[in-house]
Amino acid sequence: MAQFLNTKETLVTDAIDGLLASSGGALTRLDGYPHIKVVYRSDWDKSKVALVSGGGSGHEPAHAGFVGKGMLTAAVCGEVFASPSVEAVLAGILAVTGEAGCLLIVKNYTGDRLNFGLAAERARALGRKVEMVVVDDDIALPDLPQPRGVAGTLFVHKIAGALAENGADLATVANAAKSVIEKVVSIGMSLDTCTVPGSPKEDRIAPGKAELGLGIHGEPGVQQVDFSSAVSAVNTVVEKLTRRVASGSGVALVNNLGSTTPLEMSVLTHALAETGIARHIIGPAPMMTSLDMHGFSVSILPVSQEELEALQEPVGLAAWPGVNAIEPVNVAPLPDGLTPIAPIPSNNPKTKETIARLSELLIQAEKDLNELDAKSGDGDTGSTLATAARALQSGLDRMPLADLTQLFPALGNELSQTMGGSSGVILAIFFNAAGDACASGASIPKSLIEGLNRVSQVGGAKEGDRTMIDALAPALNALPSGLNQAAKAAREGADKTAKIHRAKAGRAAYVPEENLIGHNDPGAEAVALLFEGLAREIEG
Amino acid sequence: MAQFLNTKETLVTDAIDGLLASSGGALTRLDGYPHIKVVYRSDWDKSKVALVSGGGSGHEPAHAGFVGKGMLTAAVCGEVFASPSVEAVLAGILAVTGEAGCLLIVKNYTGDRLNFGLAAERARALGRKVEMVVVDDDIALPDLPQPRGVAGTLFVHKIAGALAENGADLATVANAAKSVIEKVVSIGMSLDTCTVPGSPKEDRIAPGKAELGLGIHGEPGVQQVDFSSAVSAVNTVVEKLTRRVASGSGVALVNNLGSTTPLEMSVLTHALAETGIARHIIGPAPMMTSLDMHGFSVSILPVSQEELEALQEPVGLAAWPGVNAIEPVNVAPLPDGLTPIAPIPSNNPKTKETIARLSELLIQAEKDLNELDAKSGDGDTGSTLATAARALQSGLDRMPLADLTQLFPALGNELSQTMGGSSGVILAIFFNAAGDACASGASIPKSLIEGLNRVSQVGGAKEGDRTMIDALAPALNALPSGLNQAAKAAREGADKTAKIHRAKAGRAAYVPEENLIGHNDPGAEAVALLFEGLAREIEG
Repeated sequence: MAQFLNTKETLVTDAIDGLLASSGGALTRLDGYPHIKVVYRSDWDKSKVALVSGGGSGHEPAHAGFVGKGMLTAAVCGEVFASPSVEAVLAGILAVTGEAGCLLIVKNYTGDRLNFGLAAERARALGRKVEMVVVDDDIALPDLPQPRGVAGTLFVHKIAGALAENGADLATVANAAKSVIEKVVSIGMSLDTCTVPGSPKEDRIAPGKAELGLGIHGEPGVQQVDFSSAVSAVNTVVEKLTRRVASGSGVALVNNLGSTTPLEMSVLTHALAETGIARHIIGPAPMMTSLDMHGFSVSILPVSQEELEALQEPVGLAAWPGVNAIEPVNVAPLPDGLTPIAPIPSNNPKTKETIARLSELLIQAEKDLNELDAKSGDGDTGSTLATAARALQSGLDRMPLADLTQLFPALGNELSQTMGGSSGVILAIFFNAAGDACASGASIPKSLIEGLNRVSQVGGAKEGDRTMIDALAPALNALPSGLNQAAKAAREGADKTAKIHRAKAGRAAYVPEENLIGHNDPGAEAVALLFEGLAREIEG
Repeated sequence: MAQFLNTKETLVTDAIDGLLASSGGALTRLDGYPHIKVVYRSDWDKSKVALVSGGGSGHEPAHAGFVGKGMLTAAVCGEVFASPSVEAVLAGILAVTGEAGCLLIVKNYTGDRLNFGLAAERARALGRKVEMVVVDDDIALPDLPQPRGVAGTLFVHKIAGALAENGADLATVANAAKSVIEKVVSIGMSLDTCTVPGSPKEDRIAPGKAELGLGIHGEPGVQQVDFSSAVSAVNTVVEKLTRRVASGSGVALVNNLGSTTPLEMSVLTHALAETGIARHIIGPAPMMTSLDMHGFSVSILPVSQEELEALQEPVGLAAWPGVNAIEPVNVAPLPDGLTPIAPIPSNNPKTKETIARLSELLIQAEKDLNELDAKSGDGDTGSTLATAARALQSGLDRMPLADLTQLFPALGNELSQTMGGSSGVILAIFFNAAGDACASGASIPKSLIEGLNRVSQVGGAKEGDRTMIDALAPALNALPSGLNQAAKAAREGADKTAKIHRAKAGRAAYVPEENLIGHNDPGAEAVALLFEGLAREIEG
């Protein structure tokens, strides 16, 4: 599978330099490429206990993404899934360790333990105070005396980081780290394996299955389980966790292992919140990933008040999502005003007659308009309008016919309900906006132009785009000169659409030019027919 | 492809409730499920201009993840890739709009424009002040008069959000939004399509190809281009962007479209920084995703000083990565002390003789130890030790033989270089820690026990785990009683390993029990041989 990298050899160094370039100068690296890849805080003055972590790459944002005030002082980065060398770790220690000493936070893998361990010895031989803790939070393999270090490591980074930032001494910071390590438990589940750069992707998880208890290096899970839903996945994970920690008291760290979408992570978080396993939550977010693995992990730390406060201390790191209390979902009642208030019916015989005749006119034009529409669309403009016209006719007695400021929005709401689709919404916007202007005291032509302006703004179409606006705009502009003028302008506008080779808005935008030439746009044609009818009706 | 969801129908509502449950009470939703999915700030008092955005889901964290002080007031969420209804948008507007009015920030899709547009009309009819802006930042299709709204929308959210939070009136906020929209440009590139829940995944991008100018709804890109590297991908994107904006002055928003790993995003960011197209950067981070699409987009906003400041105002949202200046990578020189200082050679004929004889002993035992190791490993313990012993013999003249505090670490460094692998590191840790203790004034037995403790701590093995510690620990404990006692204890310890059925540390942990029974652990056997030799040598 292709990936956004240059060469496998420069993948990690390119990525580190990208992180640094986008850090605003907050991060510095040692000049040891390609062998020594150490990232540390640019503002570090060695006056406090330094925290150094790291390990193989491929777990980003861990660890370099957590280097900053209140978390790590330095990260020592290996190649993808490979421990950094003793020299690299030693370089990291020596670069950041002052009188206050240094705590190494190491995940429990033999390579990391040995390389960080020997580097610590060599640093001690050079007079540095160095302590080392090993995180072993994975509970996937209950019988192994050497559980892996996974996402629970973040708890150690954050709590030790807060203490160190507040000036605690090395023993205090190391003891706090050890106390977290004794308590924290983690387990992961995945629907797919990860893609190691330069290696073919292993396809070992069958459809309908998930892996439970996987590591963060593409190792197979301890077992394959049936996968049916997010809720059952979370329940399985929670069942494993609650064998080791009491439910209801701790902090959950919900980690995206790579390519799980934010939607899925939120669905999982919802299910987790429902179980009541924890009172606070960190995430969901990618924190300790396994490249692009489609999975998640949950870590639980039963916390003391001091630990909770250390977790809650703000840090200015984009990768750290912060801690929130898990709360019942706040639900507020729907606001008033959603259902349009039915207008109070009123009568105006002339208005009623006019609407009825115009409706009849649209019903008569059904077949012609459908035929026109068939040239550029799905041939239903006539039917859509005729259906709306019939509904309008039968609903006339419910209309506020005597009051235009009410009639306009009532027409809009009626049309949006009976026409459906975009056309209904567009006409609803037209009549609502016209009613709004009318209620503000605008004249009828001005109100209608206001409606048109809004349709144009909202729908994005303007004259010349081969829509009904090509007839409606000239008609409304001519309206102050009388209905006959308006009808003439509408007709000219509609006929002009037959010469517009390329539709720029609406569905006809996707139709080849040759299908459009010589045929009026059906919407514009309908508008012309309406204005011509209106002129006959009123001007006689 | 399986996904972490319960049912397609509840995907979005489950996810919204997960977001709310993990928001610490900061977010509230309206009681309109499943039809009306509106998320808004719990602390909202309607005293300022409200910002409402939204659209189809599947773009998380947009838009609900950006609801909070200084950004959006409310998000109206549709189903995946489907516009929310007019009623849903209206509910959102009515829930948060007070006297100061409301700005709708809509991405340029017909459904969104129409539904948000009609909702705005209906809200106006109910007396609310509502303005609407339409974001059309996508430059993939230069000829279309209706460019799509993509990740550049985030600039509008943030800048309008900062103004609204600072008390600007609706016209000012709307004008600021329009000014951003006029300037912002975006384009995306992808190596794979997205997986729409409930639909089969389309496999339209051939190996070696990438899609340029794709949308955020799985629409095909405008063109398929050859994909060779991250640098060339970024250069292609930058070339398109610099047709529209001047290079070097703006802010780049680097968006992960879904499943691109943080490593890849950082590699792309490095390449982008190198082009000099922008002076500031937001991200890389997933902000406007397209489900799990393996791609990225770059948006550029040429900014005024006021806009930059609005972007930089802090917001307490985990989804917002903040703005940083793009800086040259800070590179610091490697610290001193990485290369072990060569010890000053000194002589002690007895020590020299002892080491030479013990080395000879290991060389003699090569074959036997290899045979033992073949039972539980790859049969090279004997050769590894013999090689190290030969190197030690030939390097004896370079050793500080007269000073144990120097000799111990020198032995450690020599062994770690000549043995390689875990064993070399373990012995280096042993001798370095012993030297450290010795330099602090500890007796020789105590120093060696200190070395053993450190090996045990770092390597994680203890007595009974079937490692060399099973011989070393009893030998060192017996050492105060003399070398003969130590040798006896080592031999007993080594022989006991033949009865340890299950190795708990080291490589033998992966070997079936039946292969281990009846054979001494080769490391423990080597230790026993050494102590027996030492006893003969010194005690006679």
